[in-house]
Amino acid sequence: MHTPEQLRELVEEALEAHELWPALHGQRESARYGLVEMGGKRIRPVISLAVGEALDAPVEQVMPAALALELVHNFSLVHDDLPALDDDAERRGKPSVWAAYGEGTAVLAGDALLAEAFRLAASYETAQVARELAEATLGMIGGQYLDTMEPAADLETVHRLKTGCLFYAAVALPLWAAGLPEEEQRPWRAFGDELGLLFQIVDDILDADGYVRAHGPDRARALADEAALRAHARLGSIPADTSVLAGIVGELAVRTA
Amino acid sequence: MHTPEQLRELVEEALEAHELWPALHGQRESARYGLVEMGGKRIRPVISLAVGEALDAPVEQVMPAALALELVHNFSLVHDDLPALDDDAERRGKPSVWAAYGEGTAVLAGDALLAEAFRLAASYETAQVARELAEATLGMIGGQYLDTMEPAADLETVHRLKTGCLFYAAVALPLWAAGLPEEEQRPWRAFGDELGLLFQIVDDILDADGYVRAHGPDRARALADEAALRAHARLGSIPADTSVLAGIVGELAVRTA
Repeated sequence: MHTPEQLRELVEEALEAHELWPALHGQRESARYGLVEMGGKRIRPVISLAVGEALDAPVEQVMPAALALELVHNFSLVHDDLPALDDDAERRGKPSVWAAYGEGTAVLAGDALLAEAFRLAASYETAQVARELAEATLGMIGGQYLDTMEPAADLETVHRLKTGCLFYAAVALPLWAAGLPEEEQRPWRAFGDELGLLFQIVDDILDADGYVRAHGPDRARALADEAALRAHARLGSIPADTSVLAGIVGELAVRTA
Repeated sequence: MHTPEQLRELVEEALEAHELWPALHGQRESARYGLVEMGGKRIRPVISLAVGEALDAPVEQVMPAALALELVHNFSLVHDDLPALDDDAERRGKPSVWAAYGEGTAVLAGDALLAEAFRLAASYETAQVARELAEATLGMIGGQYLDTMEPAADLETVHRLKTGCLFYAAVALPLWAAGLPEEEQRPWRAFGDELGLLFQIVDDILDADGYVRAHGPDRARALADEAALRAHARLGSIPADTSVLAGIVGELAVRTA
């Protein structure tokens, strides 16, 4: 089994080597900029690969699903940064895609990443990977809508959709990619439910936002610790070697960036 | 077998009845506006259903693939109309989605239609429907990029991608949805290749654009007639009752709107 850092390197190498669909022509440049050159923690695909390894599936078997998830995540960043949405000209210290390539190209770059994600997700024989990815993407879009267009929307609902759906999918997609029968997926999915919440609360602690504003810093920290405990408990109920995933949960709980 | 007009009514009814994924929350309103209320000729899904009927597949079996294609078409219109791309405030006599709901909501509405299209395409057991739809969508995005961002791009390449990919998919998707083995798909795909070209040349004749500007009106008319003849010839080589499709080709060649 690989360590999370090794898995992250495998993801980065796979993204570097990934060839976007040739018919995109010149549109590939800005899509690749948003996907590869702007970097990222790659936490979602690392989780997917770790789930795959716990299920004894080779990395190559799970990688297309893992990359698909990272593409959907990056599609959402490219579109969220647009002036008409969050209006961010920078991300991770670099010009965001629209700031570097113009708004029109950035709209199309996000579209290209989303369609390419589904091409990858649909490279499996079963359509379950693509179906599950579509549902997660729709939930994420609903969350982004509530977050930007309905200021009075309930914070937990927004987070559950905007962040939670893709983290849940990071656990669910590799179950199908690894061929785990549906009737054995339940404990894994319960684990996936906890992950997104943990990530989001810690995010809010780091940004002094969301949960911190709603509940204060101490209560937010306690909520994060409780989410981590529940995630560990869920992992404990899974009949597999989930030690790498337990390490990832531990890191997510105490991360400082 | 249904007539094209009956198939069109079935598509319209199915679009009316279609429930967008609930987690989209309030985002469903603008997505539905772009998909249902703005109307449309529904020519791509009608072709898909006609291909399905020629293969003896029931309408219900092919409908999810047909709707998925119409959703991708509408996603592309919603984004193309944005100020940063074609900057059209009106479509078919109604405010375009961004003019009615704002730019940010329109970006998300297009995203929602694209993700929902893949949810429909991935409702089949085989991932081939979603895979083929993803490839067509990527080609279409590449065409839109060339059309808006590279003014010197070759006209035929732009059209082949921007229009041709979805027409080709209108024929290819129902082949998988109807369960036609890959080795029997070749004559169908050759037919699909001709359809997009025919549609586009006639579009340019109606708009005095593209092919008309490049070759003059008489030559454009001759090219349209040749494309229609080739499409009929392709249909003739298919061992099935393709009379409804032949009628559609005839209508596409002489349409005035």
